[in-house]
Amino acid sequence: MTRTVLESKTKTVTIGFDEPFCVIGERINPSGRAKLNAELEAGDFSTVEADALAQVACGAQVLDVNSGAVFKNKMAEDPRYADNNFSEPPLMKELIQRVQAVTDVPLCIDSSVTGAIEAALEVVEGRPLINSTTGESEKMEAILPLCAKHKLPVVAISNDEAGISEDPDVRFEVARKIVQRAADHGVPAHDIVVDPLVMPVGAMATAGRQVFTLVRRLREELGVNTTCGASNISFGLPNRHGINAAFLPMAIGAGMTSAIMNPVRPVEMEAVRAANFLMDHDANGAAWIGFSRVLDAVKEGASFPEASKSAASAGRSGRRRRRG
Amino acid sequence: MTRTVLESKTKTVTIGFDEPFCVIGERINPSGRAKLNAELEAGDFSTVEADALAQVACGAQVLDVNSGAVFKNKMAEDPRYADNNFSEPPLMKELIQRVQAVTDVPLCIDSSVTGAIEAALEVVEGRPLINSTTGESEKMEAILPLCAKHKLPVVAISNDEAGISEDPDVRFEVARKIVQRAADHGVPAHDIVVDPLVMPVGAMATAGRQVFTLVRRLREELGVNTTCGASNISFGLPNRHGINAAFLPMAIGAGMTSAIMNPVRPVEMEAVRAANFLMDHDANGAAWIGFSRVLDAVKEGASFPEASKSAASAGRSGRRRRRG
Repeated sequence: MTRTVLESKTKTVTIGFDEPFCVIGERINPSGRAKLNAELEAGDFSTVEADALAQVACGAQVLDVNSGAVFKNKMAEDPRYADNNFSEPPLMKELIQRVQAVTDVPLCIDSSVTGAIEAALEVVEGRPLINSTTGESEKMEAILPLCAKHKLPVVAISNDEAGISEDPDVRFEVARKIVQRAADHGVPAHDIVVDPLVMPVGAMATAGRQVFTLVRRLREELGVNTTCGASNISFGLPNRHGINAAFLPMAIGAGMTSAIMNPVRPVEMEAVRAANFLMDHDANGAAWIGFSRVLDAVKEGASFPEASKSAASAGRSGRRRRRG
Repeated sequence: MTRTVLESKTKTVTIGFDEPFCVIGERINPSGRAKLNAELEAGDFSTVEADALAQVACGAQVLDVNSGAVFKNKMAEDPRYADNNFSEPPLMKELIQRVQAVTDVPLCIDSSVTGAIEAALEVVEGRPLINSTTGESEKMEAILPLCAKHKLPVVAISNDEAGISEDPDVRFEVARKIVQRAADHGVPAHDIVVDPLVMPVGAMATAGRQVFTLVRRLREELGVNTTCGASNISFGLPNRHGINAAFLPMAIGAGMTSAIMNPVRPVEMEAVRAANFLMDHDANGAAWIGFSRVLDAVKEGASFPEASKSAASAGRSGRRRRRG
């Protein structure tokens, strides 16, 4: 069975067909987060650190670290900051060091700037996931040799020079192309995590079915793990969490093995944990039963990260007691 | 594509591969409802009528009517009441007449007593679903000729003389046997709705995967619609609604086309409606958007049936306005 192994200094996480769904925390990303962007420009990493801790407490097994900030004030003083090739590499390094200082989960290095990924590799510990290559030739030639050289797994997004196709068969062929090109570079299929691209179901009625069909084909025909930006599915709709909380179990049932998502949302995490149980990836329902206690605490007014932390420390002391 | 057509006096409901998931309301059932059982014994049908109305308001397209009451007081006076063959037929008739008097959805006639089903057929309007036959020879010989004679669809439960197998392949073969025997009697496959039997995932770790695999096989190999007692999956577990709300979308994604369930539960109905949208069975998300307003009203303190009724009448007056 396909296994993509990620490592931090001390932890191993496997994305795989026979593993619980891998939740990759999406929060450390300044795109669309003006406040975080401004903090980063001011050299303030307190939100990054707090988000890292909260996401891990809530159940993220991997943290995505995206350095795509836009430093408008610095740009005004120094035009080099208008170039992400200049601004992202040092920011990425700092982000990784800050996150590694407070948490111990593997990382997903997320940048459209190859130099930022290279900078990350100077400081990251363990075996991160590289996010990402597309099917564009230039992008593949930049990213795949880097993955081959460092023996690292990579997210493959199924669009290319022609853009994002609305035809799922075209997206499948882009994925196949990336897998083949990666093999040419010496990156095996089990180190490729394909993102089949999730469209908003409010804009494209077949968006859900496309993903479920693609995930099954990617798994059966290419033997690869899969991921997605899960919340895209509900873009623009009322009661988005309800759509997300049905989409995730359906995608997991179809064979999806990870998602880049916000783990600090109890509704979505409940759906993932229930789906793990229903896929026989939660022995004796132990994770579900523990999580139910967290939900009980949330109902009584605790925040989800707080309740998750309390449950985790209760679990640890429980284990110590049993040992003693 | 397979279509099982049910009718009331005025409404048609199609269970089918290309239809929204069919919710069959389970509440009109005295088994395990001591209060309802006592009311029925006293000739009080007010809960039946209220449950019929509430279930339809909340989105049940079909109502299951089960006559399996146990009349202990009557039994003490007249020992014939100890025999369900005596007690169920008149009760079933009365239940059906009461339900038909207040609602206009097709019915699912649910009894282990053939005489009760026959009694129902004297008074039911339209084309009900017969619930059920098993793969037991005696049961098939009682129920299938009745279905053939009245040209009615039937629920086929995949157990037989050997009991309920824990092996999903055995349950599949029981379903195949019923489909074949039904054909011999002149009941076509599109009028058979197979219940693959849902075990509690807390007792059998593979229970979810078994159902997903069976549903896909039943659909692809036998071409039949499917149903289940959905809440069985979460029996004995904490936070059951969370398990149910992941199970339903996963089952729908695997191809399940109906369930006998409690529609007066917003969490489960939200999951079903989101799954319909994600399966491209909700044009322009109209049903989802309407349902989101119901959830908003529930958040503000309305009961789910009340909020559903208000939304439905607002929808109707809206349509009248557009016409005027």
